[in-house]
Amino acid sequence: MGEKFFTSKQAAKIIGCSLRQLQYWRDKGVVVPTIEGSGTGRSIYYSQSDLVQLALMEYLLSVGLSFATASWGLKELVKTDADYANPETKKRWMLCWNQKKRSLVLEEFDREKAIAFLDKGQAVIPVWLDLICQQLMT
Amino acid sequence: MGEKFFTSKQAAKIIGCSLRQLQYWRDKGVVVPTIEGSGTGRSIYYSQSDLVQLALMEYLLSVGLSFATASWGLKELVKTDADYANPETKKRWMLCWNQKKRSLVLEEFDREKAIAFLDKGQAVIPVWLDLICQQLMT
Repeated sequence: MGEKFFTSKQAAKIIGCSLRQLQYWRDKGVVVPTIEGSGTGRSIYYSQSDLVQLALMEYLLSVGLSFATASWGLKELVKTDADYANPETKKRWMLCWNQKKRSLVLEEFDREKAIAFLDKGQAVIPVWLDLICQQLMT
Repeated sequence: MGEKFFTSKQAAKIIGCSLRQLQYWRDKGVVVPTIEGSGTGRSIYYSQSDLVQLALMEYLLSVGLSFATASWGLKELVKTDADYANPETKKRWMLCWNQKKRSLVLEEFDREKAIAFLDKGQAVIPVWLDLICQQLMT
């Protein structure tokens, strides 16, 4: 019953990133904690959806993506997959190169399609929510 | 006979990047023109190997990689593939995730191996010299 919330310290520990990184993402508006009281500085709490977003951001950066690309990827995913934070329905996505748009796009992961990209020498970055969110389940 | 050299302006045009970008990479020591006289500022010339490096850098950034990751990838490639600038022997490489090292590594492109990475939900970024250097051949 009720929803679980996490302090910055707890969130950083679960995600495996530094407090400074969390703060930076907060300042940049990439992942903003759901509860963010003004004043004391203590009333900051990340919801479970926030944690999923943090895990995603951490993952995208760990792959070597730039901050801009990672934030964009996260935004795309949150926008595209309304169910992204639902632990029952972790979808698999991929970032891949769209020749027409000359940019990365987010698509549902499809093995055949992913291989076709590789066969053209194009990058495929799987974004598997089930895998990325594994650490949040424990 | 002899070797071809290119001014910054020519290099930027061939690669499809801005002069400012070239300058930035030069300042950061990522791609330094082979001929770089001091003083006048005019005596800057990129060799054909330099152009390959520029094309690689441009490619790695276009995939969405961070500046740090792209520079590292370029360095790795130049270090690993002594023949990288030889138009006759354009090898195919890939950047992929090494679980043990918890970082990207550069390996020779191998389709089966690349697919195995995808099947584990891990990123594969092909670095095909023949493809990336296509624009330099014309």
